[in-house]
Amino acid sequence: MLYVVGIGPGNKEEMTAHALNAICKSDTIVGYKTYIDLVKEHISEKEVVVNGMRGEVERCTRAVELASEGKNVAVISSGDPGVYAMSGLVLEIVAAKELDLDIEIVPGITSANGASASLGAPIMHDHAYISLSDLLTDFELIKKRLSLAAEGDFVICLFNPKSKGRPAHIDKAREILLKHKSVDTVVGIVNNAKREGEKVTITTLGKMLEHHIDMTTMVVIGNSNTYKYKDFMITPRGYQV
Amino acid sequence: MLYVVGIGPGNKEEMTAHALNAICKSDTIVGYKTYIDLVKEHISEKEVVVNGMRGEVERCTRAVELASEGKNVAVISSGDPGVYAMSGLVLEIVAAKELDLDIEIVPGITSANGASASLGAPIMHDHAYISLSDLLTDFELIKKRLSLAAEGDFVICLFNPKSKGRPAHIDKAREILLKHKSVDTVVGIVNNAKREGEKVTITTLGKMLEHHIDMTTMVVIGNSNTYKYKDFMITPRGYQV
Repeated sequence: MLYVVGIGPGNKEEMTAHALNAICKSDTIVGYKTYIDLVKEHISEKEVVVNGMRGEVERCTRAVELASEGKNVAVISSGDPGVYAMSGLVLEIVAAKELDLDIEIVPGITSANGASASLGAPIMHDHAYISLSDLLTDFELIKKRLSLAAEGDFVICLFNPKSKGRPAHIDKAREILLKHKSVDTVVGIVNNAKREGEKVTITTLGKMLEHHIDMTTMVVIGNSNTYKYKDFMITPRGYQV
Repeated sequence: MLYVVGIGPGNKEEMTAHALNAICKSDTIVGYKTYIDLVKEHISEKEVVVNGMRGEVERCTRAVELASEGKNVAVISSGDPGVYAMSGLVLEIVAAKELDLDIEIVPGITSANGASASLGAPIMHDHAYISLSDLLTDFELIKKRLSLAAEGDFVICLFNPKSKGRPAHIDKAREILLKHKSVDTVVGIVNNAKREGEKVTITTLGKMLEHHIDMTTMVVIGNSNTYKYKDFMITPRGYQV
């Protein structure tokens, strides 16, 4: 059996029973080092296949091989495995090899849902998930999606907002968003959502670049109705209160 | 303390420890009848405030009142409380009354994440959440968002796709999507995701209306690269496999 498991944003409390059970039932745990460390208390007796960032294809290919040999294998990632994570890659490998494996995808809480809970209720209405990483996606397509999502007044969750290799993508994204959204649009920035060292900031599209943003940051851009009350970022659904 | 708790798509396994703890720590549980039933084994000794659909404002106002009186209250909803659910309404009521309450938002797995896990990996790349309910949103805005999301080749999760009061919205949505997406676009339909009676269908934008869709259905429209392999709906991220 091959489990593809989302462990949620990274604290034990936000993991599901399903995720924990899948990890416990597995002989071998496969994952990126940071995520393995997050579940280390549950896997002390197990075989662990671990490698670094950008080793995803190698890691998932190995997981598929081990499962094909009859082992119970859990590929783990943070958040939900189906959102910019490992379930797509695992299934692509299985499809390319034309295998017929027992596979169970175990959903998890995404970093967007975790960060939003810390911010209040920013993604209460229609919203879009956009990754700013152009490692696997043409940046022209990313820019087009940013522009269309802003034109539609979607709330926008920016994944992978900034890395050392592309420090300026977030500046460019903001510039595109400002063509359709006001500088006063409320923006939530959460570093290390639901992990040790979490930092929650509520700012505006005008001022967002004054705050620290890196690969562990979730940036949530509000829609035209989003507002701030005390420490909460709130996107109304439309109820009369 | 006022907890706003997401119990996930509806089965016990997909609930987090955080959600269960918040329910256990509360004196009073507030929710729509269907959701109360999903956690009834945990709340036998507690006060329960329950009412029917469209009673949300009354229910959440009562929850805020009880918490203001010093009770520990949990407002529960399925999925994530921050996605078309109760955390926004609760915070809007708190803001309108200018209260200063201790509030904890407990995130949950959305029905989109739950349904996607059952489908395979359909939301692996940029995607949009759009609700087809026009109870609280102008239908013109919904149509605009559908059109822009389709133009951007987003994967699209359609929430509240069909109800007795608006049986034709899904037809209209499909018509709009077809202006930018091919009739062969892969579509996943999940009825009762992760609950008893779950039914998973993989079809196309051309044929989707031949399948049963109601308020408990999650409809996931693929992007131009989404494909089907055996019983899996897969949206590639862009890896070379």
